[in-house]
Amino acid sequence: MKIGILGATGAVGRQMIECLEEQNIEVDELRLFASERSVGRTFRFKKQAIPVQLVSAEHLAGLDVVLGAVSESLSKEYAPLIKAAGAIYIDNSKAFRLDPEVPLVIPEINGEDARHHHGIIANPNCSTIITLMAAAPIAKISPITRLIASTYQAVSGAGIKGLSELTEETKAVMAGEEIKPEVFPHQIAFNCIPWIGNADCNGYTSEEYKMQNEGRKIMHLPELKVTCTCVRVPVYRSHSISFSLQCERPVSVAEAEEAIRQFPGDKLIEKGYPMPIDTSNQDIVYVGRVRPDLVFDGGLAMFCCGDQIRKGAAANAVQIIRCLKL
Amino acid sequence: MKIGILGATGAVGRQMIECLEEQNIEVDELRLFASERSVGRTFRFKKQAIPVQLVSAEHLAGLDVVLGAVSESLSKEYAPLIKAAGAIYIDNSKAFRLDPEVPLVIPEINGEDARHHHGIIANPNCSTIITLMAAAPIAKISPITRLIASTYQAVSGAGIKGLSELTEETKAVMAGEEIKPEVFPHQIAFNCIPWIGNADCNGYTSEEYKMQNEGRKIMHLPELKVTCTCVRVPVYRSHSISFSLQCERPVSVAEAEEAIRQFPGDKLIEKGYPMPIDTSNQDIVYVGRVRPDLVFDGGLAMFCCGDQIRKGAAANAVQIIRCLKL
Repeated sequence: MKIGILGATGAVGRQMIECLEEQNIEVDELRLFASERSVGRTFRFKKQAIPVQLVSAEHLAGLDVVLGAVSESLSKEYAPLIKAAGAIYIDNSKAFRLDPEVPLVIPEINGEDARHHHGIIANPNCSTIITLMAAAPIAKISPITRLIASTYQAVSGAGIKGLSELTEETKAVMAGEEIKPEVFPHQIAFNCIPWIGNADCNGYTSEEYKMQNEGRKIMHLPELKVTCTCVRVPVYRSHSISFSLQCERPVSVAEAEEAIRQFPGDKLIEKGYPMPIDTSNQDIVYVGRVRPDLVFDGGLAMFCCGDQIRKGAAANAVQIIRCLKL
Repeated sequence: MKIGILGATGAVGRQMIECLEEQNIEVDELRLFASERSVGRTFRFKKQAIPVQLVSAEHLAGLDVVLGAVSESLSKEYAPLIKAAGAIYIDNSKAFRLDPEVPLVIPEINGEDARHHHGIIANPNCSTIITLMAAAPIAKISPITRLIASTYQAVSGAGIKGLSELTEETKAVMAGEEIKPEVFPHQIAFNCIPWIGNADCNGYTSEEYKMQNEGRKIMHLPELKVTCTCVRVPVYRSHSISFSLQCERPVSVAEAEEAIRQFPGDKLIEKGYPMPIDTSNQDIVYVGRVRPDLVFDGGLAMFCCGDQIRKGAAANAVQIIRCLKL
């Protein structure tokens, strides 16, 4: 298989290179694409040094799959070029996620949806992937009707610059120096910022609506109602989510725990609890603190953590390749 | 008025000294109590250096009010001594909070309850105070029936040692050194720990049940249902809470915002959002992100922040003095 990566020099793009190798995808050729200032750099894949090139019809020719780790606007710009080159585009941006022609896929949940593509498959939002990896086993027992979630999102969601801003600000606070945020709207070191994305409607942010809109599509639950509050916390690369859910029928803790235990990609934490430092730099979503919800009759309260760059982005996108019949 | 402070050398005790001065409580005499190893230290109050002494019937004699910032077990041990000395005991521990004979008071919400004491008044849990300061204005419009909350709790909840553990661990992480947690069960620097307090029933922690049990008593809403998830985050001294609530009748965002605007002790954040760094070292609770809840019909989703050592503990306890008819 011939694979290309758009935005190969970013946090997600670099992780895609690693995930292709780790997941043993049969790659006959790998091409890396990024902006002009990265052209000439090389990245290692299976002992080969792969050079970074610019995207062009010529450089895309012959590819089977292109993984995208670029912005919404760049994704929209390149999608027609990729389609024209005859490759399938697996896009990590939000550009096509809610397009009815585009499957939105978490392989463990709705991998079969990937087969009904028209050239583009969308990779869901990072918090949505991690939350649904924890919630989907319950939805298999009984359809989820309501979900209230609060996130604890890592700085890696803002890419490599987000990671270094946390380090630089932390050093500045320790040294008593002035903080000058560039990536985040305010100081993130030793702080929480309850605003991620842009203003959407009703006082919610774009990031907060994703869990409802993408959750409905991925779990095939068009009536699902979700209230989400997205909060950035001073953690490097794993997102955590605290949530309460209610299903059509009551679900017991024992049933839920057994479903999570059996669900590929999840690890049920029975002694202790999931924490972002334990889930960083691996693909498994940790799910724990499963307990009867005290507000939703027959519902459950839970806590989950997963690596934002891996299962929340790169690893999920690479897994989608295996869902395709090529 | 003659006032004593138990546990005067801890984070909350020291803050009580400052709050007595800031709130202009008429203090004729201040006595500071702590454990043996602090005896001999002095703390400044209104330009006087006050020595730390051991608690004894003799040292308590003549006091009108004793503020307690000690553990549950010490509180239970000293309460009879304080009562015997004829002083009113305002206790920050959980020892007496749910005792039907003991008022549990947030002055802005149920200050009048303080008058029906039998010698002891309890100061509520820190997260509960900060959440209820945001929720109580809504409860005045229509009684709250259901509340789902996730907390982002500062390390100051574990006292001075919690504060220094965050600093030491942060330095160690930056230097690539090994982390040896002592105060918290795991590394808190660059991490979130979804477990505060002890195991209670149904998989909840003692800290998580406080919001329901104390909320019912403070707001006089015995039927209130609360699901709470308490999470420690690497923030120094302000707690944040993300929550959804539903009242007996639908409440609009405009009604809720007006009620918060009018509520003493609250600041409605209309441009931007509340953040822990903005609320540290002051007594006001910031409330924002007020929006229609997407799960609870006619309900609201909100976010609030407040200083854990001040309004979450010391400032509230000192305010209670003014609710007493002495």
